[in-house]
Amino acid sequence: MGTEAKTEDRRHLRSALTRQKLLASAKKVFLEEGFQKATISQMINDAKIGYGTAYVHFQGKEDLLRVLMENVMEQFYEIAAISFTPQTKEEALRTIRHQTLAFLKMAEAERNMMRIFEQAIGVSTVIADKWKAIREQFIESIACDIAYSQQHGLARKDLNHLLVARGWFYMNEMYLWEIVRDEQQSTVEEIAATITELYTTGLYL
Amino acid sequence: MGTEAKTEDRRHLRSALTRQKLLASAKKVFLEEGFQKATISQMINDAKIGYGTAYVHFQGKEDLLRVLMENVMEQFYEIAAISFTPQTKEEALRTIRHQTLAFLKMAEAERNMMRIFEQAIGVSTVIADKWKAIREQFIESIACDIAYSQQHGLARKDLNHLLVARGWFYMNEMYLWEIVRDEQQSTVEEIAATITELYTTGLYL
Repeated sequence: MGTEAKTEDRRHLRSALTRQKLLASAKKVFLEEGFQKATISQMINDAKIGYGTAYVHFQGKEDLLRVLMENVMEQFYEIAAISFTPQTKEEALRTIRHQTLAFLKMAEAERNMMRIFEQAIGVSTVIADKWKAIREQFIESIACDIAYSQQHGLARKDLNHLLVARGWFYMNEMYLWEIVRDEQQSTVEEIAATITELYTTGLYL
Repeated sequence: MGTEAKTEDRRHLRSALTRQKLLASAKKVFLEEGFQKATISQMINDAKIGYGTAYVHFQGKEDLLRVLMENVMEQFYEIAAISFTPQTKEEALRTIRHQTLAFLKMAEAERNMMRIFEQAIGVSTVIADKWKAIREQFIESIACDIAYSQQHGLARKDLNHLLVARGWFYMNEMYLWEIVRDEQQSTVEEIAATITELYTTGLYL
């Protein structure tokens, strides 16, 4: 490898590290101050990097939160993206039960950052739009799973899979926010078991 | 009736009329300006009443919107409060189908004011708390209906009626906001029919 290529590599590495440092500081400041009171200056100071460098990476605190949101939600996506090719109804139900519980458990585990997201969704168009995009990705993934089940004779075909997917995600999402706010009146396990039973009995043959 | 009683009556009537005038002006100003930009001064001026008189009735614009929200939601309550004492599963399904459709149709009919409510829920604690109280009333009413159906052998008893009621309302609520924003991708009729089928098949025997 030539000297030029090595220099290029080092530059990329330094850039990635700066970005990571700034994201870590942003997370810390958001958790301490809440979305509204947090400022990008606090984040830049905490990361001990230059203002000019910081603004190369992010345009403002909303931009930083958008990336933090993507990072947290990626863990949720991994649950949703579990390969869904069940051979039997029982296999389908097992997977859905597992996904629902993991989804709501994740809300519990990520409660502090999710609370910041909820604050931000209420006041920032950038974050509200990002949340909407995330929601649509989940709904699409669920819709695919339903279509698979319908095509393989496991689920009833008289229901529009897109509308069912949306309704089912909405039920999960509202329970997710309830759990984030720590307002749920039952255990996460009972919530997951109950809504999964209702949904799968309603949809599967 | 003595003169004193008559004077008292007139005073009450005048007070009620002032209140109604102010609410009508508040509605008008909210619809024109949106929640954030609307001011109580605009409302008082539009109603052509004195500032002192206005503040006897309402403490501020949030207080006015809270009452407007109650008034709109009362129409929804009337749907939810339809006497629910079905003798058969078919009767239960018919009523639920009718309620769900009426609920979502109402969102469509009251779209403009509901949009103001949605804006306000995001930024005002008073309005957000009011919405939560409204939601709990709906959930309670649904939970009663489910308990009735379970006690009369129409619905399965292995599901916690409170958790089912909450999940079902959440599904309806999220579709309600979608319809309010005019973002729904199907007709209100198809949405209502699909989610009712999913729910009733999941819950009823």
